[in-house]
Amino acid sequence: MSTVAFIGLGNMGGPMAVNLIKAGFTVRVFDLVPAAMQALAEQGALTATSACGAAAGSDIVVTMLPAGKHVRSLYVGDADNKGLIDVVGKGTLLIDCSTIDADSARFVANHAADKGLEFIDAPVSGGTAGAAAGTLTFICGGTDNAFEQAQGVLTAMGANIFHAGGPGAGQVAKICNNMLLSVLMVATSESLQMGVDHGLDPKVLSDIMKVSSGGNWTLDKYNPCPGVMESVPSSNDYQGGFMVDLMVKDLGLSQEAALLSNSSTPMGALARSLYVNHARKGNGKRDFSSIFEQFAPSSSE
Amino acid sequence: MSTVAFIGLGNMGGPMAVNLIKAGFTVRVFDLVPAAMQALAEQGALTATSACGAAAGSDIVVTMLPAGKHVRSLYVGDADNKGLIDVVGKGTLLIDCSTIDADSARFVANHAADKGLEFIDAPVSGGTAGAAAGTLTFICGGTDNAFEQAQGVLTAMGANIFHAGGPGAGQVAKICNNMLLSVLMVATSESLQMGVDHGLDPKVLSDIMKVSSGGNWTLDKYNPCPGVMESVPSSNDYQGGFMVDLMVKDLGLSQEAALLSNSSTPMGALARSLYVNHARKGNGKRDFSSIFEQFAPSSSE
Amino acid sequence: MSTVAFIGLGNMGGPMAVNLIKAGFTVRVFDLVPAAMQALAEQGALTATSACGAAAGSDIVVTMLPAGKHVRSLYVGDADNKGLIDVVGKGTLLIDCSTIDADSARFVANHAADKGLEFIDAPVSGGTAGAAAGTLTFICGGTDNAFEQAQGVLTAMGANIFHAGGPGAGQVAKICNNMLLSVLMVATSESLQMGVDHGLDPKVLSDIMKVSSGGNWTLDKYNPCPGVMESVPSSNDYQGGFMVDLMVKDLGLSQEAALLSNSSTPMGALARSLYVNHARKGNGKRDFSSIFEQFAPSSSE
Amino acid sequence: MSTVAFIGLGNMGGPMAVNLIKAGFTVRVFDLVPAAMQALAEQGALTATSACGAAAGSDIVVTMLPAGKHVRSLYVGDADNKGLIDVVGKGTLLIDCSTIDADSARFVANHAADKGLEFIDAPVSGGTAGAAAGTLTFICGGTDNAFEQAQGVLTAMGANIFHAGGPGAGQVAKICNNMLLSVLMVATSESLQMGVDHGLDPKVLSDIMKVSSGGNWTLDKYNPCPGVMESVPSSNDYQGGFMVDLMVKDLGLSQEAALLSNSSTPMGALARSLYVNHARKGNGKRDFSSIFEQFAPSSSE
Repeated sequence: MSTVAFIGLGNMGGPMAVNLIKAGFTVRVFDLVPAAMQALAEQGALTATSACGAAAGSDIVVTMLPAGKHVRSLYVGDADNKGLIDVVGKGTLLIDCSTIDADSARFVANHAADKGLEFIDAPVSGGTAGAAAGTLTFICGGTDNAFEQAQGVLTAMGANIFHAGGPGAGQVAKICNNMLLSVLMVATSESLQMGVDHGLDPKVLSDIMKVSSGGNWTLDKYNPCPGVMESVPSSNDYQGGFMVDLMVKDLGLSQEAALLSNSSTPMGALARSLYVNHARKGNGKRDFSSIFEQFAPSSSE
Repeated sequence: MSTVAFIGLGNMGGPMAVNLIKAGFTVRVFDLVPAAMQALAEQGALTATSACGAAAGSDIVVTMLPAGKHVRSLYVGDADNKGLIDVVGKGTLLIDCSTIDADSARFVANHAADKGLEFIDAPVSGGTAGAAAGTLTFICGGTDNAFEQAQGVLTAMGANIFHAGGPGAGQVAKICNNMLLSVLMVATSESLQMGVDHGLDPKVLSDIMKVSSGGNWTLDKYNPCPGVMESVPSSNDYQGGFMVDLMVKDLGLSQEAALLSNSSTPMGALARSLYVNHARKGNGKRDFSSIFEQFAPSSSE
Repeated sequence: MSTVAFIGLGNMGGPMAVNLIKAGFTVRVFDLVPAAMQALAEQGALTATSACGAAAGSDIVVTMLPAGKHVRSLYVGDADNKGLIDVVGKGTLLIDCSTIDADSARFVANHAADKGLEFIDAPVSGGTAGAAAGTLTFICGGTDNAFEQAQGVLTAMGANIFHAGGPGAGQVAKICNNMLLSVLMVATSESLQMGVDHGLDPKVLSDIMKVSSGGNWTLDKYNPCPGVMESVPSSNDYQGGFMVDLMVKDLGLSQEAALLSNSSTPMGALARSLYVNHARKGNGKRDFSSIFEQFAPSSSE
Repeated sequence: MSTVAFIGLGNMGGPMAVNLIKAGFTVRVFDLVPAAMQALAEQGALTATSACGAAAGSDIVVTMLPAGKHVRSLYVGDADNKGLIDVVGKGTLLIDCSTIDADSARFVANHAADKGLEFIDAPVSGGTAGAAAGTLTFICGGTDNAFEQAQGVLTAMGANIFHAGGPGAGQVAKICNNMLLSVLMVATSESLQMGVDHGLDPKVLSDIMKVSSGGNWTLDKYNPCPGVMESVPSSNDYQGGFMVDLMVKDLGLSQEAALLSNSSTPMGALARSLYVNHARKGNGKRDFSSIFEQFAPSSSE
């Protein structure tokens, strides 16, 4: 089995690395937080004293970081620091699982290509539950060859592995999807609330729409109206799930992408503004389906 | 078998009445256009010289009309004319299949109830193809008793029969659904085009999103991007299907409903404005998925 | 001097009628609330026992009512009640100062014309302060002749008298204006807050924009950002001024008008949704410039 | 009089530099296009063989460039090239008149400050006509001291000189203003067209709204409806004026700024989407008031 360097052991990265260990890979880890590394060591990982130290000599590098600037700087380095692409051996496959702007992904891919290395952008969805269960979805951008090579590692961590296109395409596809998701959530919320305002039962209305032409993922899996569906955040005071702050981040990335390509996204742009307002009213840490509350009368009304 | 009066024999009503005949009902028809009645007579319908003439003595009345004012006036009458509710016998079931404003549906239902009659608003979806095939979807508003009584007639014309709630609820549920559908269509269009603007293949992006959290009816059944899906209007120069003008009508009904209930529908309201602009640019008779073209560069660019 | 019947003596109508008395008109009043009539009687008005009683024999009728249905019913009557147009004498000028839907205004104007009477829709702006000071703005729809005849009465109550066009045009012009105003308020709020988010002083930014191409009425007279301008609602916790609930009403009228004429108003429709959400969060009785708070971080953030 | 280096002699920069010559400054110019320099030389400018050559030894540097990346690279340089801040003398005042992102302006200001130099971001409005006439508006960001020092040069080129705040504030204030302007234009267009759809005369409606609470710069100076106002682009088939492509650029900058500060700008974001769609339909080179046509029925309807 190959040796995998895993860098970035947060809420997502930690359990992902554990699944690699379980699948039999030799895993070398690095994180700026020592406790995060220690937790992985207890699961059988080898620890390194730097990202470059973990990467050097590994067959595959997997990274999970907060933002594009971290990814750029880690892989490409700067005047004072070497980047991962300066230290890994020929033939090492680079896989970044962070959700970042497409431009940064292409920037790193280009620098990697200059050194003869393959780089895949492979942002994930599925949340911390999916990371622990090994059922994440990966949406990948990169060459066919790199995508094929990555199968072993990715299937050890996820259940659905998509190939969206060349470098950067994974990031683009993910933010297209998440932008669309945000609109589905807002539009489903406003439609359900309008039905409720006219005296309809939201469960009955949901049941009708989900098998009609209004059918969408939020009605199937994640109804935003409290009480309609069990075991979703809306029935648990919007706790857990996918935080408003994370949706705001992804909508920000979608708008960055729209600016880059001079695209018009009236629905996605509106969703972003509504979500930013929602976050600014103190809802950033609640599940993103709580946008439903913006349409419902406040309890004090 | 019961006798059914069918009033309004247009592109939808005509084939619906034919399916009632095929199912064994005695069908009395009326339409202001003689040729429309003649066509039904050739299929075995009895013709009447007025709507009231068709309705009087029938067990069930089915109507299919263009707008709320027609439905109000036909059922309730005015200073000069009797309404259907003045001429039908005790126990006659009234079923209006028109897509109209909820207020008019409730108005007629109330007047019918004053005379001890049951009225169901049962707007349909499925288009002329569904009307001919007998596979329409009916979304009904009315009492449980009326809904049960209507089963025989509705299943002769449709495949899915929903009970949304009391009087008017059928209309509300239908426009909630169609408002949501319009947003799905616009948001899917802008997401796909943004992907294309970044070099992605719209078919690949569609395949990814439809099984991800962006999944929705338009990706499953009605992709708006030319060439992605066979046998849908987008692959046939947006001919056939559900016309922009009809979506504009339904979005108008949705905004009327939002005004009545003082509801906020930012996405639906925006979709209406975009569709009105689209219609004003000469696209009213094209399929509603042609809104995709608003996001794509014009061919001359 | 002429005799004027004034019907509807609320917060606006009361002081308007007082100004007619002060200007020397003989004023006959009616209101469903006896105390409202009593207050006018103390100012020198004659009281009537019904609206028709006040109108019969008057030279001019002025009405100030809440909604289109009241105006229709008062002027045109119904099966059980006579309307004002049935009881007034030949040559009586009818002036409705209510803010209502254009369709109702045209409906009454048509019925009046059938009886040979002139009807003017003359909605006002300027609020209760303008009503008391006699500085209201009237935006009138009606014939040139009727507009000329109305000058005496209107100038006794207002400072600016506009003639927007034929019957209904006063209502249309007013809601076009108020729809535009709502967008100015929202857009100015979001622009100022974005400046503040970047560290700019909102007063400095306001001073720059108001003399630049972003200049608009809200920057000149009604800055929504607390502390920028003295003696406006934003510097008094958004008390007083023009209530959110009234803006929601006017935006509802604007959307009714847009539906009637099949017009596209993306900005106005979005403003309505934002204002409805704002009202639903308990802000209905606050000044409409409080929409600014939707863009600012909540104090607890 | 001081010596001024002027770099970037395009449609705006050229006439601005001429006004400095006319005001008596010694002007050294540089542009990548030799003909542009030659034209200035004929007006009395000294030409340089590089930007650094023009700047070295000058008292003041003025730059007018297309985008943030050009400004960053010119002032700060890179691994291979010195920046202006490396070659100018102590006490040289740096003034960038480009319209760029605030982040780039702050980046350059910080680098300049590290070298003890004052940098002002001073984006302009007023177009090529204002540049030629010396009536531009400058919106400046920088220290009080720098702003004071810049007066002589700026008043030679413009009529209104605003101080918006510290470094970057000029750019922020300008895009706040232009974002607001874009919304004024769209909202005024939709309001006027809705009036027209109801049979109102757009000139009469404009006259009413411009002195009412809907009053704004576009009604005063730049009415978008053809025929209402003479000598504006709408009465000249939307030729001349401020191009749609430039408004799209500024709206892009406004959305970049909104992303940086996590601000919600629903109106500005919607305006951007509408303008991008408008540009994509082949209107990029027309005046930005041509957005009015999106709301009007097409001539063929």
